[in-house]
Amino acid sequence: MSGAIAELADLLARLPGIGRRSATRLAFHLLKANPEYVRRLGESVGALHDRVKRCAICANIGDDDPCAICADGARAGRAICVVEGVPDLWAIEEAGTFHGRYHVLHGLLKPIDGIGPAELNLATLADRVAREGVEEVIVATRPSVEGEATALLVKQTLAGLGVRVTRIASGVPHGSELEYADGRTLIRALDDRREL
Amino acid sequence: MSGAIAELADLLARLPGIGRRSATRLAFHLLKANPEYVRRLGESVGALHDRVKRCAICANIGDDDPCAICADGARAGRAICVVEGVPDLWAIEEAGTFHGRYHVLHGLLKPIDGIGPAELNLATLADRVAREGVEEVIVATRPSVEGEATALLVKQTLAGLGVRVTRIASGVPHGSELEYADGRTLIRALDDRREL
Repeated sequence: MSGAIAELADLLARLPGIGRRSATRLAFHLLKANPEYVRRLGESVGALHDRVKRCAICANIGDDDPCAICADGARAGRAICVVEGVPDLWAIEEAGTFHGRYHVLHGLLKPIDGIGPAELNLATLADRVAREGVEEVIVATRPSVEGEATALLVKQTLAGLGVRVTRIASGVPHGSELEYADGRTLIRALDDRREL
Repeated sequence: MSGAIAELADLLARLPGIGRRSATRLAFHLLKANPEYVRRLGESVGALHDRVKRCAICANIGDDDPCAICADGARAGRAICVVEGVPDLWAIEEAGTFHGRYHVLHGLLKPIDGIGPAELNLATLADRVAREGVEEVIVATRPSVEGEATALLVKQTLAGLGVRVTRIASGVPHGSELEYADGRTLIRALDDRREL
């Protein structure tokens, strides 16, 4: 019917998890929504790629380069936490327990998809470890085949530098019920048991 | 972390059916998506309210005023189909069986929410019926308490004009199973039975 509405619905339908029908519904919702909000949303989407920068040190994506974490002197000299992507960094920051810096790989090893060591942001990690004088690198990639393979690659990359390379624990998640945990999770939870 | 990403996630989280978590995920998706697509999406959202017009005749929302349907001479003098909103008009157009014009109420009677006859786009309907010389007004509001009340209101509004006012059928939807139909639907389906 309307070019503007149909065009918007087409573009929205390309977003993950938004089907043809929800896209049309969203377009009509925006039509009825506060015009100032809709204008701001459009601006925020449109300017996203221009506004964000990639940190030259850790590859975090944010408003500044270096990012706020790398620019924070209080975080220097502590551990470096290696993560798959920026959402993982956000999640760890939100947990509030880690006070070091990060290194964002922007992916995990996945040879079948053509993602080898060269496709990951790994080349500068060894340099960072030496330059920033950290004693520990915590590999916080997800506990999956790709995540474990990537963790081993990080360990190999740092071999001989005298830095401690650790891996986050994998097990039954906090608050969940054992009976719903899958077999591999239970195996990890039992293998990685610790003294009480 | 990042102002631009967090701001976008905040705006996206205000959309219906998109929670805090999906909003953040969408923002990160847009960060990785084709920049040209993201720019076009932003422009399409931002320009929506400026681009669309409300048809002065039927109140359809589209790129032109009068809308393409009201401007189509071949659709003149046939029935007028009264609908709650523009999405309903689109749905009926897609079905392809109706070739008359529409009248968009932009709502249904709902006194509890302060929506009375004056809040609906109803004032011009009687004039249209006389001026356009139509013989039938089909009320296609949904089969609900509000939809039925609105249908009666349309009938009262047109009383004495000599125009036939009809109501779309309500019953068991095509392709569905009777055992899953709710009681009210079955009652309507039985009451409105017709000769075979």
